[in-house]
Amino acid sequence: MIPITPLNVKSIEFIQAQIDNKTKPLGALGALEPLALQLALITNQRHQKNSDCNDSDFSHSELESSSQISINNPVMLVFSGDHGINDNNVSIAPSAVTKQMVLNFLMGGAAINCFCQSNDIALTVVDCGILQPISADEVPQVASKTMNSVNFIEQRLGAGTNDFSVESAMSIIAVEQGFDYARQLVEAQVKQGAEILLLGEMGIANTSSAAALMSALTLSSVPECVGRGTGITDEQLEKKIALIESALQRVKVSEKNVENLTQDEIILLLSELGGFEIVQMVSAILSAATASIPVVIDGFIVSVAALVALRLDKDVANYLIFSHVSQENAHQKLLEELISAQTFNESSSQPLLNLGLRLGEGTGAALAFPLIKASASFYNNMASFESAGVTV
Amino acid sequence: MIPITPLNVKSIEFIQAQIDNKTKPLGALGALEPLALQLALITNQRHQKNSDCNDSDFSHSELESSSQISINNPVMLVFSGDHGINDNNVSIAPSAVTKQMVLNFLMGGAAINCFCQSNDIALTVVDCGILQPISADEVPQVASKTMNSVNFIEQRLGAGTNDFSVESAMSIIAVEQGFDYARQLVEAQVKQGAEILLLGEMGIANTSSAAALMSALTLSSVPECVGRGTGITDEQLEKKIALIESALQRVKVSEKNVENLTQDEIILLLSELGGFEIVQMVSAILSAATASIPVVIDGFIVSVAALVALRLDKDVANYLIFSHVSQENAHQKLLEELISAQTFNESSSQPLLNLGLRLGEGTGAALAFPLIKASASFYNNMASFESAGVTV
Repeated sequence: MIPITPLNVKSIEFIQAQIDNKTKPLGALGALEPLALQLALITNQRHQKNSDCNDSDFSHSELESSSQISINNPVMLVFSGDHGINDNNVSIAPSAVTKQMVLNFLMGGAAINCFCQSNDIALTVVDCGILQPISADEVPQVASKTMNSVNFIEQRLGAGTNDFSVESAMSIIAVEQGFDYARQLVEAQVKQGAEILLLGEMGIANTSSAAALMSALTLSSVPECVGRGTGITDEQLEKKIALIESALQRVKVSEKNVENLTQDEIILLLSELGGFEIVQMVSAILSAATASIPVVIDGFIVSVAALVALRLDKDVANYLIFSHVSQENAHQKLLEELISAQTFNESSSQPLLNLGLRLGEGTGAALAFPLIKASASFYNNMASFESAGVTV
Repeated sequence: MIPITPLNVKSIEFIQAQIDNKTKPLGALGALEPLALQLALITNQRHQKNSDCNDSDFSHSELESSSQISINNPVMLVFSGDHGINDNNVSIAPSAVTKQMVLNFLMGGAAINCFCQSNDIALTVVDCGILQPISADEVPQVASKTMNSVNFIEQRLGAGTNDFSVESAMSIIAVEQGFDYARQLVEAQVKQGAEILLLGEMGIANTSSAAALMSALTLSSVPECVGRGTGITDEQLEKKIALIESALQRVKVSEKNVENLTQDEIILLLSELGGFEIVQMVSAILSAATASIPVVIDGFIVSVAALVALRLDKDVANYLIFSHVSQENAHQKLLEELISAQTFNESSSQPLLNLGLRLGEGTGAALAFPLIKASASFYNNMASFESAGVTV
């Protein structure tokens, strides 16, 4: 894996002074202010890197004068996959619903279609390994007048994972293949002009894999990491916990120091616990950070992918934007861990929305995107006290 | 005043069934779901009313089949005014800053310009009585390429209010004039196609008038209603409390039953406590509800205007959308009172954002608008389980 360049914070004082000199009381834009700082730092980093690549002379003053935030061509990638563990009935729905929902995405009928369309975000749906692939005659012509077109990409690692409560979810080779697929996808998006990436997922029972990974990588107990997903019963919840606990016994995670696992140990955990869409999201997050592109994190599943990415390379943290805290039990705690790994700002950032969402698909990320755009807009366009003649 | 038509809730079950049959788990879109219900009820009410006006036949089935949410042509009205009480130095800034900020709005350099531009909201700034009017040679040509054009309207009720700690802020005639001005403005906006109204304000020291009105209309103590505005010192805070308390003694509010004040008593309170922009916002809120247009409420000052409107006509409540809870001390408590007056929904609605904002100008309302649009979008465009072939 290519190491992520640590976010260069040498322009932090210059950027903070820009923010503080806007025509508003200090800090009056609340959470949008550290967000603007983060976006400006990342944009600077990208410009500096591109400049270095071109081997041109890019002086400090040029860097400062060019310090407009740029987050054009937002792209939402929705990674989908199926999960063998759902043979044990740990979700409200059968695995066949994953494919039905992917078809719904392609028809433009899901919530994520509405929110991407409403907020001018390009939408790409990735089949990472749903049970049955979409056949050519099933892929509809997505040409509804009221919907953005939807791209569909197949990067299948299998026909659903194995049941990780009794065996490895997938092979090490599948993990590596997933990493390659997602890296190439993100690199292509960046080449086509994407300056910010948003992530979402679809996969019946994927909160089980996510909870297992969270427990393995934080040593929080399984009951602390498990929630009701989209709404399972008490009985299903107990079964879900028991299955995950038996998987973690097989993998023997409790013997490890979770913050200092080797890359190989983390790859092994991913192969043991799954799932196909989580593997590809981990790589997508790392690849965006490598390209100095901010990544908007959605709900619990995407946040777990961010946690895995963080364990692989701690420098990913400063490239993450947390869109919302969901209703899923462990999401708040997981977000605290991810946010505490950020170093660009002394005051903690916070998830932008708290709307009681529990849908996934990237809906929280898409809904938060206008706040991210607003943050860029005030940084780029607001007058200073001096330029506006305001004498506070 | 024209009485507001109570929101017709007879289609509530039909609308809730539409929401519940979208391709998502029940309730998975959190706060966006009761918001969609409210918007659909209001849109239906407006269509029904317009149909009644045209005296055409509008059957129940037509009503249901036409039940798309329509919130086109959003308009932000920013009401500005100055406050005599600031002669006592109760704000971080001198009153001259109100005019400087109004000029900043007209130049397109303020936060509200950025957020209206970013979210496609038309912006109108209203001078309700700042200290010095904007002279013709000061009104700039607002033609920046990156900014929406800004409309400017003069509806002045004076050159700042009187110091309400020692005398009435304005005459009863000024209050009535302010009500007329704002009603005519809103009626004109609705005639031009506005289907949703957003409100903001600018007025150095206007948290003092707002806190006084809140205390008078809820019997919360003055310290419970007073905050630090945009950032005053302990000493200023104490003085602010003392001045408001002496004003309330003069007005003798504590002898009244605050939920059953007559219209004349409330008009009297407005004339005693001010201010010009609050008076006009009260009328704007009532006028929007009369036209069956939803009103997006911004921070503490606008919320106090909504409270006054509620005391004048309780049927205004169901037309209010609460954009955010600000950092101002009393805002949370005030929102709870306003939300508890809503009757369209058994589960309480909630403010959409909690970003630590403390700026005013309508910034919270503008920032929340994409969530309101997203709510309309999922209601209007998402597939049903049946149409998408999803078998959960």
